[in-house]
Parts: sequence; C-alpha cells; structure tokens
Amino acid sequence: MGLKSQDYLRDASGVRRKNVLMTIRVGLIGAGNIGTSHARDLSTRVAGSTVSVIYDFDEARARELAAELDARAVSSYQDVIAAADVDAVLIASPDQFHAEQALACLAAGKPTLCEKPLSPSEAGARSVLDAEVALGRQLIMMGFMRRFDPGYVELKGGFGPAGIGEPLVIRNSHRNEIAPYGLDSAMSITNAAIHEIDINRWLTDDEYAWVEVLTGRNGPLTPEGQHDPLFLLLKTTQGTIIDIEMFVQSQLGYEVTCAVTGGLGAAEMADGSYVTTSRTLHRGHDLPKQWLGRFQEAYRLQLQAWITHLTDGGPLPGASTWDGYVGAVVANRAIESLRSGQRVAVTLPPRPALYA
Amino acid sequence: MGLKSQDYLRDASGVRRKNVLMTIRVGLIGAGNIGTSHARDLSTRVAGSTVSVIYDFDEARARELAAELDARAVSSYQDVIAAADVDAVLIASPDQFHAEQALACLAAGKPTLCEKPLSPSEAGARSVLDAEVALGRQLIMMGFMRRFDPGYVELKGGFGPAGIGEPLVIRNSHRNEIAPYGLDSAMSITNAAIHEIDINRWLTDDEYAWVEVLTGRNGPLTPEGQHDPLFLLLKTTQGTIIDIEMFVQSQLGYEVTCAVTGGLGAAEMADGSYVTTSRTLHRGHDLPKQWLGRFQEAYRLQLQAWITHLTDGGPLPGASTWDGYVGAVVANRAIESLRSGQRVAVTLPPRPALYA
Amino acid sequence: MGLKSQDYLRDASGVRRKNVLMTIRVGLIGAGNIGTSHARDLSTRVAGSTVSVIYDFDEARARELAAELDARAVSSYQDVIAAADVDAVLIASPDQFHAEQALACLAAGKPTLCEKPLSPSEAGARSVLDAEVALGRQLIMMGFMRRFDPGYVELKGGFGPAGIGEPLVIRNSHRNEIAPYGLDSAMSITNAAIHEIDINRWLTDDEYAWVEVLTGRNGPLTPEGQHDPLFLLLKTTQGTIIDIEMFVQSQLGYEVTCAVTGGLGAAEMADGSYVTTSRTLHRGHDLPKQWLGRFQEAYRLQLQAWITHLTDGGPLPGASTWDGYVGAVVANRAIESLRSGQRVAVTLPPRPALYA
Amino acid sequence: MGLKSQDYLRDASGVRRKNVLMTIRVGLIGAGNIGTSHARDLSTRVAGSTVSVIYDFDEARARELAAELDARAVSSYQDVIAAADVDAVLIASPDQFHAEQALACLAAGKPTLCEKPLSPSEAGARSVLDAEVALGRQLIMMGFMRRFDPGYVELKGGFGPAGIGEPLVIRNSHRNEIAPYGLDSAMSITNAAIHEIDINRWLTDDEYAWVEVLTGRNGPLTPEGQHDPLFLLLKTTQGTIIDIEMFVQSQLGYEVTCAVTGGLGAAEMADGSYVTTSRTLHRGHDLPKQWLGRFQEAYRLQLQAWITHLTDGGPLPGASTWDGYVGAVVANRAIESLRSGQRVAVTLPPRPALYA
Repeated sequence: MGLKSQDYLRDASGVRRKNVLMTIRVGLIGAGNIGTSHARDLSTRVAGSTVSVIYDFDEARARELAAELDARAVSSYQDVIAAADVDAVLIASPDQFHAEQALACLAAGKPTLCEKPLSPSEAGARSVLDAEVALGRQLIMMGFMRRFDPGYVELKGGFGPAGIGEPLVIRNSHRNEIAPYGLDSAMSITNAAIHEIDINRWLTDDEYAWVEVLTGRNGPLTPEGQHDPLFLLLKTTQGTIIDIEMFVQSQLGYEVTCAVTGGLGAAEMADGSYVTTSRTLHRGHDLPKQWLGRFQEAYRLQLQAWITHLTDGGPLPGASTWDGYVGAVVANRAIESLRSGQRVAVTLPPRPALYA
Repeated sequence: MGLKSQDYLRDASGVRRKNVLMTIRVGLIGAGNIGTSHARDLSTRVAGSTVSVIYDFDEARARELAAELDARAVSSYQDVIAAADVDAVLIASPDQFHAEQALACLAAGKPTLCEKPLSPSEAGARSVLDAEVALGRQLIMMGFMRRFDPGYVELKGGFGPAGIGEPLVIRNSHRNEIAPYGLDSAMSITNAAIHEIDINRWLTDDEYAWVEVLTGRNGPLTPEGQHDPLFLLLKTTQGTIIDIEMFVQSQLGYEVTCAVTGGLGAAEMADGSYVTTSRTLHRGHDLPKQWLGRFQEAYRLQLQAWITHLTDGGPLPGASTWDGYVGAVVANRAIESLRSGQRVAVTLPPRPALYA
Repeated sequence: MGLKSQDYLRDASGVRRKNVLMTIRVGLIGAGNIGTSHARDLSTRVAGSTVSVIYDFDEARARELAAELDARAVSSYQDVIAAADVDAVLIASPDQFHAEQALACLAAGKPTLCEKPLSPSEAGARSVLDAEVALGRQLIMMGFMRRFDPGYVELKGGFGPAGIGEPLVIRNSHRNEIAPYGLDSAMSITNAAIHEIDINRWLTDDEYAWVEVLTGRNGPLTPEGQHDPLFLLLKTTQGTIIDIEMFVQSQLGYEVTCAVTGGLGAAEMADGSYVTTSRTLHRGHDLPKQWLGRFQEAYRLQLQAWITHLTDGGPLPGASTWDGYVGAVVANRAIESLRSGQRVAVTLPPRPALYA
Repeated sequence: MGLKSQDYLRDASGVRRKNVLMTIRVGLIGAGNIGTSHARDLSTRVAGSTVSVIYDFDEARARELAAELDARAVSSYQDVIAAADVDAVLIASPDQFHAEQALACLAAGKPTLCEKPLSPSEAGARSVLDAEVALGRQLIMMGFMRRFDPGYVELKGGFGPAGIGEPLVIRNSHRNEIAPYGLDSAMSITNAAIHEIDINRWLTDDEYAWVEVLTGRNGPLTPEGQHDPLFLLLKTTQGTIIDIEMFVQSQLGYEVTCAVTGGLGAAEMADGSYVTTSRTLHRGHDLPKQWLGRFQEAYRLQLQAWITHLTDGGPLPGASTWDGYVGAVVANRAIESLRSGQRVAVTLPPRPALYA
C-alpha cells in the first residue's frame, strides 16, 4: 500500500522490525455487533494491525470501545477518514450509509474494507464503482467474508477433474433463528441472501443470466404482506442452476449449507461441527444462534488477508467494488422478481479493466 | 379379498391354520431384475405368499426362476392372469406394457401390484383409471415403494407441530451411477423422477399447481440432444415449493436424498448407513451401485403390506390407480416443459369417489 | 429339519405348494415384550411360519395374544413342547428358566430358538450343552440376534485385505435409558453385556483369553453397592483387545455402537438413522427408547433365517448351544472379576465335534 | 511480563500505540516442520509478535527461514536465548534437548514456550520443574496445544449438569498414517500418546492413579520387537476410566477422536470437517495426512494466547511445567507397564504452590 519511509520504526535496541514498521492503523466507522467484533479481532487476533480511531452514531458506544482498545473516539465518520493516524478504514455502519462513506474513503485515498452490501440500491453501488474506476486503482475490498470461510474454500477446492467436476447444480440454505430487526422480504435479499448471491458467483466463476424469486407457504412467524422463506432461483451464463432458500425467521438457529452437484460427484458443506452429543433420546450437535458463531473464523481470516495485503502489497485478496456492484444489481433484479412474480434477466455493463 | 371357503386348508393334524389358509398365490409378469427380486421376496421373505406362475418375454429366464421358486412358467401374460392358482398378479414388465396388462387384470378381477409407472402416457394411465372406476372397486396397487421406505416414513412422521412444522420447501436429489439402457431425458422423468413426483405428493398430502423443467450444464456423459441432470421445479396448490435434481448418469452411485424445510425446523433424509469407515485419507461410507441397495427393505415392506391387505382386508395400503394416473399427468406436463422451456400448469379431473 | 411326507399339503387346485407345505408351527414359551414381538413377526412378517400354541406365566396375557394370532393358549410350557401342532419352540421366558426349558425341548426332539442367555449360570448352560452333544444333533439356536443385524453384518463384511484389515482393537458401547427392572451389576453382564460378549466372538472368529471388569465413577442413578457403567476389558487368544462400556442407566436412550480398528483402517457402526433434523438450536437425530427400536429388523431377520433353515435344511444359521455356553462361561468369569477386582482367565473345554 | 518503560514506542505521528509497544520478539530454537509453522504463525497470523532470531542444527535451514521472515540466524541455541532482541523463546528442537534448553531459558529469565514433551525422561522433566520452583515464577508454557483446540474446548464445555454430566469413561483414538522416523513403541508413548496423557488430565481436572499398556495383534507395518497399536488404560484418582488407542502406523491418515461417556449423556469429538463428498460409490470426507491438518488452528490459538499473555499479563493460559512434568512421569510409568506387562501405580510429589 505504499507506506512512506517516515513510518519506519526502530525499537529500543535500534533494530528495525518488520512487523512494527508495518502495523496498519485502522479507523472504524460503526461500532455495532459486527464493527465491535472486527475491532477486537484487529487489535488482538490479527497480525500487523491496530485500531486507532472509532466513530459510531452512538457516541458513548464509540468511547467505550475506544477505551477498551486503547484507541480514540471521534464525532463524525469524516473525522475517522481524515485522521493522520488512520492508514485504512473499516466501514461497518448501517447498510444505507455504505456507499456515501465508501465514496469519502475513495476521495481521501484511504484503503477501505466495506461491510456488505456496497449499497441496497443499484444507483448507490454504481456511484462507488464509477468513482473507483475514475480513481484508477482498487482501494475498496468488500466484506464478503464467506470467500475466506474454511468450509466454502474447501468446497470450491474440491471442484475440477480431480474432484467432483464442474458445478452443475448448487443448492443453498441460509436460515436465521429470528430476524433481529423485524422481517422485510426485500431486506432478506439485500442484507442476507446477498451473501449467497456473491458466494455462488465466486464458486462458479460466472455471472448470472436471470433470477427469479418464488414465494409460497410462509413460516408461522411471517408478518402479513411479507414472505418467508424466499426461494431464489438463478441460472448462470454457463448454465449452472442455483437455488437459495432464504429463511430469516426459521426458529431453528443459524444454519448455512451449500450442496453442489458436479459432473463427477457431489459435495455438501455443513458447519464443521466438532462434537456430537447423545442426550435424552437425541444425538446431534448444537447450532449457533447467530452468524458470528458460524463465520467468526471467516471474519478473522478476511481481516488478516486484508491487513497482510496492505502491508505486503499484491492483488486485492477478497471481493472488489465490482463484486459489490454486481451483488447490488442482482439483489435489485431479485426484488423486481419478488414484486412482479416474473423471471428477470440480469444484465451488466462491461466489466471495467480495473477488475479484469 | 374374499377367498372362497374351498380355499381353506387343514394340515395333517386337522388343525385349521390361518396362515396356511391365507397363502396368496402370486402370478408374476416380467422376470427381470425387479420382478426376480419381488418373486424371491414373496417366496422367502414375506409372510403369507407364494409365487405360483411366472411369465417373461425371455422364456428361459421365466423357466429358470420358476424352477428356483417351485413355480411354473407360462408363455403369455394372459396365462398368468387366467391361471386358477393365481390369486393376485404382480406386473413387473417394461413400462410400456403396464397399462394393457393392468386392464387385463381388472377384466379378470384379480388384485394387482403394478410396478411404476402406471403408464408412460397420460392416455394409457387414464384408460386404467377409467376401467377401475367403472369396475367400482380398487384392485390395483401402484408400486411406489418409497411410501414404505423407513427413511421417508420417518421423515413424514416428523412433520407437524411437535416436529418441524408443515413442509414449506422440499429439495430432492435422485442420482444413478449410469443409466442402464442409455439416457433419454423424457424417460428420466417418466421412469425415474416419477418416484419424486409421487413421494412429494405423499409427503405434502397435496397436488401440484405447476411444473417446470430447467436444463443447464450437462454432466460429461450426456449424449448430444439430451439433458442430464434435469432440475424439476414444482409448486403445490397450497404453495409448497419443491425441486428435484434428477441426475441419471452422475457416476457417483445411487443416492437419494430429500431435505425438507418446515415452519418450525428442517429435516434431511439420507440413506440410513450403518458403518463409517476410515481408510487411506478418507472417512465415510459406501454408496450402493443400484436402487435395490437403497430400497430393498422398502420393496419387501410394500410386498408384505400388499399380501397382508389381500389376506386381512382393509383399505389399500399403498399408492392407488389415482396416484398412478396423477403421476402420469405430472410427468407428461414435465416433458412438455422440458420441450417448450415454459412453466406448465397441472390440471386434474375431479378425484373419483372411489379414491376419496 | 426333516418334515415327514404326511406333512405335504396340496391346495384346492391340487397343486403342491412349497410354502404351504413348509409352514412351521411355532409354540411360544413366554409372552412378554420380546415373546410378543417374536410371535407377531412369525405370524405376519416372516415367510413360512405361524404361531400355534402359547404359554405364559400370566395366563390372561397368553390368551390375549393367542386370540390376536389365531393360536391357542395352554397352561404349562410342557404343553407347548408336547403339542402335536408345534413343529418348533421359541423360548422367551425369564432368563433363569431357559436352561430347563431348552432341556425339555431337546428331550422332545423339537427344534428351538432360545432367547439369550442360555443360562445365567455356567452349570445351567453346561447341562444343555451336554444334553445336545449326547443327542448328537443341533436342535437349539441361540437368540443372539445381533449376528443378523444389518449394521454388524456390514461391519464384519468390511474386514479383510480389501477393507480395514484384521480387527486389532474393538470398542463397544451399550447404553440403555433406564434399567427396566432395577439395576444389578451382575445382571448387567449376564443379561445385557452378554450381547457384546457374543458379538465380538463372532466378529473376530476367536475366543477370549481373559476378561476383566473395571468399575469407577458411577452414574447418578446407580444404587448403593452397584456399579454402572461397567467397563469390560477382554483379550482374545489371537490378541485382539476389546472393551465394552455397559451403561444400563445412562438416561440418554438406547444406543449401541461398535468401533473397530483394523490393520488397514478403522470402521464404526452406528444406528443407521435415516433422518437428520435441525430444530431449536440443535441438529441431529432421535435415539430410540428401547432395543426393539434399534434391533427390530435384526430380530425379524433372525426369525426368518431360523424358519427358512427349518424348512430348507442346511447348517444352523445363527448362534449355537456352544455359543450360548461360551457366553455363560465368559459372563461368569466377568462376574468373578467384578467381585474380585482381578483379571480372570477364560478356559473352555474342547469344542465338541458337533459344533466344529 | 513486565516490559520496561524504555520499550514504549511512538510512531511517526507521536501517537503512543499499544500494539506497537507490545510486539513480542520471539527467538526460535529448532526450525523443523513444527518450528517453521510456529514462526510463520508468529510473523503473519498472530497479533503482537514477530520472530527476530532463529537457530537450527541445520544452519542453512535457519538462514532460509530467517530470510523469509526478516529475522536473523544464529549458530547456537544459547545465542537465541541471550539475544537482546529476543523477548521470549520458542523451543521446537528434538525431544531430547527440551529440558536442557528450558533450563537455559529459566537461567536467562526469558519466557518460553516449550514444545511437548518437557522431556522424554522423568529426571529431565524433574530438573526443569525444580529450577522453575526455585526461581519462584512461571516462565515456561508447555506446548500442549490441544487445550486450545476448538474441538476439545467444545467437548469439555459440554460437561456438567447442563450437559452430559461428569466424565465417567473416556476413549481416545490417535492415529497417524505412517511414523515419520520409524516406529519405536516407547516413543509412541513419550512423543505421541503424551498428548492424550495431558488432554485427559485437562478434561477431567484430575490425576491418574495407575496406567497399564496392553499390546496385542499388531498392524501389518509393525517391525519385529515393537508393538503398534498400543492400548493404554488409565484410571484417575476419582475413578474415571480412560483408554487410548495409539496407532502410529495405521495407514489411514491422521485421525484423533475422543468419546466421553458422562453421567447424563455422551459426547464424541471428531475433526470438524466441513465438506461431505459423494463420488465413485463413496460418501464421506477426506482425512489429513498430518497433525498440522487437524490442529493448525489449535497451534495458532496457543501462540496467540501466549503472546497476549506476555503483553497483557495474567495467569499462564496453557499447560505449565508441572503439566509437563506429570506428563513425563505418566509416560514413564506407561513404558514400565509396556515392558513388564503389569499395571503400574502413578505417584506424584505434592504439587508445588507455584502451580496451585
């Protein structure tokens, strides 16, 4: 990332130390559940990083986290981005602010890890894409952390002639116990199913040709006028058929599965549970209540990859602004389908050379 | 079934014996793999039955099986149906002969177990339905043996308020290693996916509103002009969304799974494997090469239920001619969808009172 | 079994029918849980058998079952054995009566299926062994039904050079939810662990060199002066090391597992469950409350093998009196070890030629 | 660990930065497989550490790793310990050098992470214990990394009244594909089973009363005069019965399992595999070839806990010198049992107050 020479440090013995030199000072925008988890990881579980500046709409919350992590709280996201001791920015604010804040990071030339989605709206996502293309270099990495999950990585690693062949059919389940902020079917797509929209592009190295959202029998907790579960059906340009069962109020816990039928075999990803218990007429394992229980390690690995990339250089190790933009486009076509009941074609502009 | 009094037998001690009395003498039409398996079950693993008469197009094969089972071979299927020592008929001939032979059994008034499908054609299935309705009593049981499979029975038993709730989404996989007689996509529906078409009606106690067949990337063994895997999408009148991945040349073995998302939880049916083996960097269990390896017990239980029904009376314990007819209708709508690329509505005549 | 020619029957059409001819009329001694289950299987789920005569200490229970199965109740076990319409006897009385009743069956020359154990005492078991040897032919089959369980059969079938190699270490767990009639540690061996004592001989085709019973921390439901779980340690003459965890009041349900380490790999037998369910923060499958839930199929297969053997002849298909005797010897050495805290050698007389 | 004030650093902006301050400079003794893995973790995957100095018997190997990690190579282990830019030492040399090097670290007052075992000999382990007790503070953490493994942690977390109750019986399997340096039965205990000897003390919070090693049928790759698998039997002072199947040349891959029977239920730890694959008549998951494939995450978590402890203070987060000493005692009693064929009592000196 081009740290300047004055950033070089020497310790008390005068020895130049690589890791000391390269410590990335991260500024955090948004100190909710996920922002707090990220900040703790960066401070205590990731090599080469520290958290220096924190902003949250709830200022007390920002101050409390800053005290815990030996950082300082500021009173606007702009102050985070502008701070001299912020080498890179992590955006973990509510979805609707992501695009605006990402644009400000681009303007300031600061590397950014932006939580998904890039924007709930296609226009918002497009504005960030255009700005980064105009800038001419990739500063933004999208927080599609499943690309770092050991389960998905192992799954994709098993494709090909030595494994299960090419993916022909992929079936995804994404279940939450309860929607934390109430259920809105459009948000089930832009905020939750967006993970599957991204990870299946990544699994197939392909783009979608069309998307359709089917609704049917609702679960018992579905409010009037909403649909849950949703059943998303997609087909890629090469013909892989993909479905996503998105069940936000499933009541059963947090469960993510992905089953792939390949040309030479089949593979299913479950949750990597270690312990099977037999008790009171049942044998099995516990399910986590929330996504951090399943994807904690993926989040940490994503942060480590980002920090290592910032210190060592090389190509962006995770999802790009282009990936964030495509996610927004597909999610919005899915919402159109949800409303019209029709299958909707997905059309994308040419992929800019920056993301080749 | 109304055995006549002269059928009563007494043993050497003069004691009237229920099971001896009630032995059902079955005539077999078709002595291929499945017919031979059924005949051996009836002779040696089912209470209350014997095989008395056997016909096969290959007369040597019929004679050989007859010798093994102490039965006699005849030279036409009509001779099976007409034989005085045939109390009931089992049709296990090629698909295209089922309807004609079932009609002959109805004409002769002989109880019949007919292998699926009732007919590859809708008209063929309809002719049998009409004949049985005209007769006014149910003589035909359809060989949809999955209704007797311990796995599916346990799966359905877990629905409802004490279990996973009502079924909202059901996803089925049906994979063969290799299509034994070559691959024909329409036959993948009428001969193979017909099992899922039936079992999902049974699981949901519902009828289908529409069916669509999606095709996409083919497996490496798919001949020119055919599609494999097929992806069938169905919706029931109450809104349950169902998909079926039908992969006839999957190369991986015989594997049937069914995953149900209910309003209160989720359940998956696998193959009831007993033994997990660790060897040479792998831990898992073997898959059978063929359906008999997975459903052998379901076939036996179906035969036992049929024989017990014939001796003890009571309602038909398995699928009816109506079920066979509906299967044929849905399969033919699916073939239309395969050819047109369109979603096709399923419309059924009113269910005759005979099958209420 | 040498049915005499007058037993041949012909049906109303004059056709000689194998299965009709060969129907074995079974007399039942003991109509408790397992006896009732066996009788229903013989009447309705096993080819070639019927139940003709029933005795139970509780005469009303015998009459009720007899009415259900079209059999007749008698007032002593001797009347069962002596009945003209009893071709074979099934002993399902309490353990302490098995030997005496088996001796009476031998004296009457009637083929017998004797529930395990042959006797809780070594002397009792020896008396039956001696009597059968004196008779010079095998009339008794021991009800060690696990030899017919699809799980154990698959496990043993995976031994050898094409599988996991020869068995080097075997670890067994046998857990009940609650001991139905109270807990007595010696009875945990003679009545429950006797299954593992037998099945591991069968798995290894070997005899035991010594046995030791370890006790340690008890489960919370263990009465004063008793031990539960027990940990049995055995070594075979060829050196296979075997342990058995026998936990009669485990509270978790009925669970039987067997894990084998072979020279080329390892294999574990579980319960062949079909359905995995996710609900309320847990994913897994139900455990049965009782052994019939796990071994129902093994019991049926054992009865079918016995009946088929009686009609078709050939060697005894299950455990012999010798197996019953060895089980009693090993169980009694185990009780000695439980009491003395010492490892106890197992010594057996030469195997009689009858059981070669 | 009491870093002195001159260690405080400020970056170019003059901001005092916690993580920069606290970077622990680790000196590595031994750059084989495990040492190299540790060094890479410390440099690139652990927060707050760097590797500054490296020694290996093979000097070229040390230089190569030093170049990769921006460290420097030295020509003796004493030079590592004495270096001004080494805050803490990691011992990853061959087993027989651990005690001598740990003593040197104690003499230099440098915090140390010592790979297991503390020593193959009881006397060696005792000398380190005595020296640390004399020093009066804990400087050594033993590399029993399974205490950090998510699987074992989840397993132990399920004990108690809300879970499976107290552990009554524990059965462990530890299998390698091939012994990398040849098979020596005593070394199977001191180098491999030492993991189970430690982890079962940790699981039970208890000490062993006795140990016995049984040998029996050997695997096909066992050299003359050696034994493989070994079957270790242990009982704790509170009566928990523990066995360990240690199979160094199992040929099946690296597999570690731990099955616990508790007073209220049972639990089994497997390998946390994510992906199940169906291919060519088999369904299952791959096994790793080596321990790093299974315990990579445990190693990283152990290192992070150690580094965080060194920067933040607090009690030692992992195994202590006392744990290392007890492991050596039990391993040596096990070797006595292996040689004598007898059960051997385990007696320990009183636990020094330092480890209370």
